[in-house]
Amino acid sequence: MTRGKFIALEGGEGAGKSTQSRLLAAALRERGLEVVTTREPGGTAGAEAIRALVLHGVGEDAAGWSPRAEALLFAAARSDHVEKLIRPALERGAWVICDRFLDSSRAYQGGGGGLTDEELRKLHEIGSAGMLPDLTVLIEVAPEVAAARLARRDLGGTDRIGSRDAAYHARVAQAFASFAQAEPERFARVCGNGTLEETSALIVAALGTLS
Amino acid sequence: MTRGKFIALEGGEGAGKSTQSRLLAAALRERGLEVVTTREPGGTAGAEAIRALVLHGVGEDAAGWSPRAEALLFAAARSDHVEKLIRPALERGAWVICDRFLDSSRAYQGGGGGLTDEELRKLHEIGSAGMLPDLTVLIEVAPEVAAARLARRDLGGTDRIGSRDAAYHARVAQAFASFAQAEPERFARVCGNGTLEETSALIVAALGTLS
Repeated sequence: MTRGKFIALEGGEGAGKSTQSRLLAAALRERGLEVVTTREPGGTAGAEAIRALVLHGVGEDAAGWSPRAEALLFAAARSDHVEKLIRPALERGAWVICDRFLDSSRAYQGGGGGLTDEELRKLHEIGSAGMLPDLTVLIEVAPEVAAARLARRDLGGTDRIGSRDAAYHARVAQAFASFAQAEPERFARVCGNGTLEETSALIVAALGTLS
Repeated sequence: MTRGKFIALEGGEGAGKSTQSRLLAAALRERGLEVVTTREPGGTAGAEAIRALVLHGVGEDAAGWSPRAEALLFAAARSDHVEKLIRPALERGAWVICDRFLDSSRAYQGGGGGLTDEELRKLHEIGSAGMLPDLTVLIEVAPEVAAARLARRDLGGTDRIGSRDAAYHARVAQAFASFAQAEPERFARVCGNGTLEETSALIVAALGTLS
């Protein structure tokens, strides 16, 4: 059995990652592939429990988590996710599409949160043997496009990270762009300003180098 | 204001750490000191939430956490604990007595769980700037003494770690002993086979080098 491919979708809030994950899965299934879609933080029972702790905080502890505790929690969730879901799926030949992976930790905790990239890479090395996607699709949208999409979402769905300010999100976008420049062979940059169908077609085209 | 002292109590299950923590706190308060007693994993709202995840697992996920995910979760809990409780207490002049700290992670995840000591130290460096106790009291008891004490505890209180087998606990005890040998200036080894009062007197005597 050939090992499946591991594709991560990355980008800021409102980039359309979860919708594009579904569209990409449908396109790959039409080729007869087994496809597993998942997301981070989360994807397994343990990782989803950690996700709830991180995104919604604990009881009356209004101060929330420090960037360092948050980075360790994300690395723990990722370790569980890689070991119990991603690696077994790839080994049985399935393709895995993951909505956010390591680069989100690097952009959010590193670019915006005060940890060095070396520290975040080290956590991933310890937790998940440094496993990287075969292809990381970075969906980039103009800030006003992302803002308009987020405004249409139910406000009740806003979490601790999504509700941070515009300067924070700008730093995150810049961090993602710099990762893509540093590792052009692992990244495909895709414009997400168009319609769902236009963006999906760009992502499918970007996969051409895989297979 | 003089910074307080940070004392960790370490040892295997049934060593008597939580009882000795209370007795030591009482002895220090008689000297007029402000004393904070706490425990790991836990000590803050966030860390206690992580403790519950680690010790009791998640829903139907019977397989539990891998040693790597567990080590990351403990490091996250410790980061929160150090930042929000231990460091502020020490800075206002209080003494802090902590039931388990870094060396428990080194003994349980390292000695028994398959991570290297370098990896566990690295997690502590990233999460908590590598903060170490001023004195670590290692309470050592004979395996049959520990077993007799554990047998008297309510079985309902047994958690995922306490219920592991005897060979696992022997490896943990050996790991603690090797840490104490490697850093004799940071450790005091105390025999915990005697009565509560005898052990408490030994711990108070071991503190002589501090203050």
